[in-house]
Order: sequence, then structure tokens, then C-alpha cells
Amino acid sequence: MRIGIIGTGTVGQTLAGKLVELGHEVTLGSRTKDNEKGLAWAGQAGPNGHAGTFADAAEFGEVVINATGGTVSLAALRAAGAERLAGKLLIDVSNPLVFGPEGELTLDPVNTDSIGEQIQREFPEARVVKALNTLTAVMMVDPAKLPGEHNLFIAGNDAGAKAETVALLGEFGWPAEWILDLGDITGARGTEMMMPFWIRIYRQFGTPEFNYSFKRRA
Amino acid sequence: MRIGIIGTGTVGQTLAGKLVELGHEVTLGSRTKDNEKGLAWAGQAGPNGHAGTFADAAEFGEVVINATGGTVSLAALRAAGAERLAGKLLIDVSNPLVFGPEGELTLDPVNTDSIGEQIQREFPEARVVKALNTLTAVMMVDPAKLPGEHNLFIAGNDAGAKAETVALLGEFGWPAEWILDLGDITGARGTEMMMPFWIRIYRQFGTPEFNYSFKRRA
Repeated sequence: MRIGIIGTGTVGQTLAGKLVELGHEVTLGSRTKDNEKGLAWAGQAGPNGHAGTFADAAEFGEVVINATGGTVSLAALRAAGAERLAGKLLIDVSNPLVFGPEGELTLDPVNTDSIGEQIQREFPEARVVKALNTLTAVMMVDPAKLPGEHNLFIAGNDAGAKAETVALLGEFGWPAEWILDLGDITGARGTEMMMPFWIRIYRQFGTPEFNYSFKRRA
Repeated sequence: MRIGIIGTGTVGQTLAGKLVELGHEVTLGSRTKDNEKGLAWAGQAGPNGHAGTFADAAEFGEVVINATGGTVSLAALRAAGAERLAGKLLIDVSNPLVFGPEGELTLDPVNTDSIGEQIQREFPEARVVKALNTLTAVMMVDPAKLPGEHNLFIAGNDAGAKAETVALLGEFGWPAEWILDLGDITGARGTEMMMPFWIRIYRQFGTPEFNYSFKRRA
């Protein structure tokens, strides 16, 4: 499958690397065509890895993944172009993290909105699914790093898009029954608002390589 | 031990019942002395269960538990009286849930503040520990409802108060190593902001009898 990834940070590169390894063809998109991180990634990714602009990545992908930070996601996707996203599965991995001058974390938006919803509102023809924003990049593509069952969460308005997302996550090693469907795209509020907690747990454990797992009554 | 509980809702009554069962003496406090829920609870709780005002409960308790809703917690604790809370462990179980006219959930405060912090600021002589606000009432006092390890989270500025909290939770059946310390009272932001996620998971599972469990790399 052809996949366009918006964003050349750790998340974008990690997902891109795994997708190429799985046999997909990937264009890693950045703000400018000559972005060093994008070119460096493509230079070592083999024939199925390409670099380009956000628009190049969106044009290329049958599926598009937003791997930018939440504060710049809308701008990046505008640069990608609504017409290049229309009808496509758009997996949104972002979190609305805003760090203040003293490193203080806040979320924007919060409470009554989320980046996932903002994207779906601004790009109504894209089929947005919020996913993978609850764990660190290396864990996204390698659930076997942890023993036993642990969970991912998806939210989106389009049932077919969620099913496609579950299938793609399955290629990463996530059994479908480990992926909990939080309902429509407003479910993105829940997972985005977990970040302050996630960061505290990270400090407690001293490693980002952990994940949520749910116990419930049988 | 003598324990004062502020709030006669499901959380307050569940904690009160378990504490009496464990041999503690409890005063369940409400806004007015003739509160029907308080009197009904005390009427069936045996000789170690009492009902009274918020002030009665705070005066009575060597430990005080805030089991009111987050939107009314400060008012309830003002009625309890700062002088009756001074020096005491004050376990804050509240969440800042605000439901809009159409049932829409928001949190207030959010992001840069939390109910736990508001309480600690307004009652600086109380030793506030945020705890137990991440799971449903029946689970708080009966971790064996779920198989294997699952987790609680505490946050507070006073290490001694956190140790006392861990000991009391131990009486409920929580092993100390299942209780993760999120640091100072600002850690309350993290657990309070999990509520929108918690509610989505509740809808997904169809039961509130679930809990977070963490997997991490060894």
C-alpha cells in the first residue's frame, strides 16, 4: 500500500520505517522539499522510502498519517491540501501538547474539543481516525516489547476507516481485540487528555516503554 | 482510627461502610445535620458509624476523606473548617466533573490546576493526598474484584501523608507496590484529566468495574 506520512519527527520516522519493513511504499512529508531529516530517512530506507513535501506525501498516500505535533497539525494538513486528503483514511497520531516557558505542560485544545475533531471538522471529506497517541513511538510498532495484552484506543466517525486502521495496526502486531473503540471522533478528547497522566507515569517508571492495559470483571 | 468522611454519596458511603467493617470509627458528614442519607447510613452502620455535619466529621476524624463532587469540594471543606483539617491527612477522592445542559462533560479546573491543588492551596495546613479518583466506588474497597495486579495513583506534597494513605489503602486490600506515586499534588492534574477517557472506556465495556493496569519493560 502507498502511505503518506505528515511529519518527520520520531513518530513519523518510526512509523515510516516499520511500514517500509512490512513492504509498504512510504513518502515521508515535511514542510520543505529539502528537509534534512526527510532526505536522510529516505536515503537509508531503500527503494520504497521517499521524501517530499506535506503535499507530496498526501498526494502519494492511499492512507495518510498525521505524525506532527498537535500545535502544528492543522497548518501541516492545510499545506498537504484538503483535496489530497479527501476520501482517504487519515490516521491522526498527534497530541495537543503545549509547553510553557518553564516547561509547564498544558493541552490546547482541551475539554470540549480535540485535535482529532479539529482535523475532522476542517477536512470533512477525510476519514479521520484518532489512534496511537497514547504510547511512545517504539511501542507503536512493536507491541511484543511488553508481555501479555495491553491496549490501543481508536476513535472516529467512519466505521470503515476504523476497520482499516485496525487492519494496519494488526500488521504492526496488535491483535484486533487489544484495540478498544472509543466511539466517534469526540473520543479523541479522552485519549488526548491522558497526556499529563502519561508524563507522570513516565517520570515514575523512568522509561516511556509502558502501556495501559485494562482489567475488567468477566 | 477515627475517620471523618465529607460527602454522603456513593463514594462516601462505600468508603464509610468498608472502614467500619475494618474496625474504624466513622462520622459521615453532610451539609446539614438532618441529612437523610447520612442518618440512614448511620442507622444501619452499627455503633462505630455516625452521621453529622461536615464540621462534625472533620472534627471527629484523625483522618479526613473528601468524597464530595469536585464542583462543591471547596465549599464543603470550608464548611468543615480549616482549623479542623489542620495537620491532618486529607484524602481527596474528588473529580472536577461538570456536565453541561446536554450532558456534555467538561473538567473545571483543568490543565494548570486541579481540585487537589485547590484544596491544598486553600487549606495549607492540611496534608492533602489525591487518591482513589480513578476508579468506581466498589472497586476502591475491593481490588480483588479484578484478577492480578492493577493500579492506584497517589499525589501529594507530604511524604508522610502519602505513606499513611498507602497504609490505609493496604487495609482495603491494595498492595503497596500496586500504588504508583505521581509526585507532588500537581500530579492530581493527571488523574483528574483521565475522567473523559475513563467514561469512554466505561461505555465501551458497559461496566464501571474495570481498572488501569500498567505493563512496562522489565
